[in-house]
Amino acid sequence: MPEKKPINGFSKLNKQEKLEVVASYFEDSENALAELQTFWHNDPKKQKLFDEFSENTITNFFFPFGVAPNMLINGKKYMVPMVIEESSVVAAASSSAKFWADKGGFHAKIISTEKIGQVHFIWKGTPEKLKTHMPAIKKKLINGAKDITFRMEERGGGVLDIELIDMTYELENYYQLKATFETKDSMRANFINSSLEEFSSLLKSYFTENNDFVNGEKDCMVIMSILSNYTPNCLVEAFVECDIDELEQPGIDMNPEAFAWKFDKAVKIANVDTFRATTHNKGIFNGIDSVALATGNDFRAIEACGHTYAARSGKYRSLTKVSIKDGKFKYTLRIPLALGTVGGLTTLHPMAKRSLELLGNPNAEELMMIVAVTGLANNFGAIKSLVTKGIQQGHMKMHLFNILNHYDATEEEKKKAVVYFEDKKVSFQKISEFIKDFRS
Amino acid sequence: MPEKKPINGFSKLNKQEKLEVVASYFEDSENALAELQTFWHNDPKKQKLFDEFSENTITNFFFPFGVAPNMLINGKKYMVPMVIEESSVVAAASSSAKFWADKGGFHAKIISTEKIGQVHFIWKGTPEKLKTHMPAIKKKLINGAKDITFRMEERGGGVLDIELIDMTYELENYYQLKATFETKDSMRANFINSSLEEFSSLLKSYFTENNDFVNGEKDCMVIMSILSNYTPNCLVEAFVECDIDELEQPGIDMNPEAFAWKFDKAVKIANVDTFRATTHNKGIFNGIDSVALATGNDFRAIEACGHTYAARSGKYRSLTKVSIKDGKFKYTLRIPLALGTVGGLTTLHPMAKRSLELLGNPNAEELMMIVAVTGLANNFGAIKSLVTKGIQQGHMKMHLFNILNHYDATEEEKKKAVVYFEDKKVSFQKISEFIKDFRS
Repeated sequence: MPEKKPINGFSKLNKQEKLEVVASYFEDSENALAELQTFWHNDPKKQKLFDEFSENTITNFFFPFGVAPNMLINGKKYMVPMVIEESSVVAAASSSAKFWADKGGFHAKIISTEKIGQVHFIWKGTPEKLKTHMPAIKKKLINGAKDITFRMEERGGGVLDIELIDMTYELENYYQLKATFETKDSMRANFINSSLEEFSSLLKSYFTENNDFVNGEKDCMVIMSILSNYTPNCLVEAFVECDIDELEQPGIDMNPEAFAWKFDKAVKIANVDTFRATTHNKGIFNGIDSVALATGNDFRAIEACGHTYAARSGKYRSLTKVSIKDGKFKYTLRIPLALGTVGGLTTLHPMAKRSLELLGNPNAEELMMIVAVTGLANNFGAIKSLVTKGIQQGHMKMHLFNILNHYDATEEEKKKAVVYFEDKKVSFQKISEFIKDFRS
Repeated sequence: MPEKKPINGFSKLNKQEKLEVVASYFEDSENALAELQTFWHNDPKKQKLFDEFSENTITNFFFPFGVAPNMLINGKKYMVPMVIEESSVVAAASSSAKFWADKGGFHAKIISTEKIGQVHFIWKGTPEKLKTHMPAIKKKLINGAKDITFRMEERGGGVLDIELIDMTYELENYYQLKATFETKDSMRANFINSSLEEFSSLLKSYFTENNDFVNGEKDCMVIMSILSNYTPNCLVEAFVECDIDELEQPGIDMNPEAFAWKFDKAVKIANVDTFRATTHNKGIFNGIDSVALATGNDFRAIEACGHTYAARSGKYRSLTKVSIKDGKFKYTLRIPLALGTVGGLTTLHPMAKRSLELLGNPNAEELMMIVAVTGLANNFGAIKSLVTKGIQQGHMKMHLFNILNHYDATEEEKKKAVVYFEDKKVSFQKISEFIKDFRS
């Protein structure tokens, strides 16, 4: 790749011009240009929609869109849309769905749905004085922001509370207004951020206008106003439960009691060991993010929130828990999930819209339950494999096609490989040998 | 949506059959079927590739593929590929790239590249006795797994060490073998997991074969063997640095000293307040995940690792730090990032391959630096907006087209809207009014 000159005004170029600049970075510029265009949607209007989701867009990145059928949640059967690039994630969710379908399925419930936003400010006065003014400040802010909040209030949401947090022990003169919101089914970001910015200017004027404040007390410097992605009180619980006897599995050299015991140990380990906890929870997010991506939700927000929650005790731990009592096995996931089913990409992205339709157009609470269940299903599948036959056997089998594609295997070679590896351990090495033998 | 009967053997159906089952879930089945197919790649061979990445695949989910030009890293200019559904992420990265381009750009360095795997086992003997056997166990495991490790060793990687971790104080009879690996440029998962499963069976046979062990000591129950996604010693640092005077920004009502002071406060707040830290770090992952997605890396692994690292002190904190000293402003991100540039999707996904080409086919270490820099760039852009004009002004402007698309705005309406909102605050409400006025 030749060193390129700085590009001025790239964002002002039209798409074709941008595409040409980008193509010039490739050694096979013409091929590259043609290939990038093969990923455009055939309908130029739809393609324009994708282009306008983000900036400097030149094409689309394809992620496989799969489904996990037969996911039984609170007695209702779902076909769960999953968007994920990693092999074995959809398979694990589907296999767990099947495993639990005849054991009552998955259960889920909403614990709470509160969102959070903060105005961070520096103010040079005593915490005591500020506290006495809080009822008046709160009133001014809530009334003053009605222009922004009235539509949300009509839909049953709005500002729940505004609280003063004294943080001066952490940082000199630093306070917070911590506001809590109910945002119903909507993507909350714009509503909360607009409300907070309004609070922030109302707060500043409160200090200048009120005669109880003198000199430096009149100045309030707002450092920033923004929602928090950490929403520990926007919480959902998903669980499965059955008699231990029902954990019998064909082809596994382990009785149900031994399986339950070992499964329990695996989860306890993820609770006491952070190195294991990270991977344990990552398996949960494999499922959660797949559905979040499919439904146009922001997976970075979900990940940041869930992992912070996993560390809330002062140590990063497992998000799931096993209980074995009176012959019953119960496996529970509790996780904060702030999701939306209206607004944002959920309705704009044609496939996100289809994903929601496939789920029967759930509201945000129902989606929280579906997403949490899929996370639990994926984690259950992973632990089940880990404590029985190990992760590699199943995983590599799922990975078989990717490795075969790496060798540009023909359809015939693929078919033979599937038969050949049916009862054998799959590894990159083994497949490579198989292909070599087959071709010679 | 009518309640559906359980679907048996869904995974065994061919793609067309799967598609028809899925379509039957939609009220407009025929339209849905047709629409799902519009997202297929025109080249059936390429489409088959996407189908085989995952399971039960029926179509593709499109993510906008954009670029951030002019990203100067260690003196070299990059055109950074970013795959992200959130508006303003690519714009923020590009704007930070531009801001820093004439101030020496971004700097980055690799601190370490160690990967981790664990064999978790239950053994009923004393920790002291086990410790005396560790040198012999380690030797047996490393030599015994040569079949799996020799190819990685040829490429300069392999097993670095195997350590015994006594966890009996946390859980009765629970020990770990903690193995460290160097995996060079490859996606490490399969190599590490296969090595660990081999270690696990070698460990079991060590106990049965060695005459120093009697009775219960001969039994070693391996709970599970698997890599850890938490790799605090696979670490990269990215930073920017300039004279405070250089932080002058046109159109901002704040001098460079005041800006630096306020920026510093914003980062300090993210260090002392977890609610803010989560969102602060989420902004870093906006950039990191965009490049991870574009290059076929596993973003769930990256997220799980980075957030665990953010909580390592016992409190979830900011991943970045500001230093203001001797008239210099320095902003640093330190983050563990286990990435691959060969194997897995990186070479199989045509667009992931193109992304790596666009970056000049970096090795894993170079990619770690590019990804970390993009994370820092995004976070810098977010904090810069937050402490100056607020997040909403810029964000809503980026969001303008999405809202206009929501109203099916024509090209003419879009053009007028861009001009109209050039100097005005954008909100959903305002745009809705604009469209209504324009159309009446």
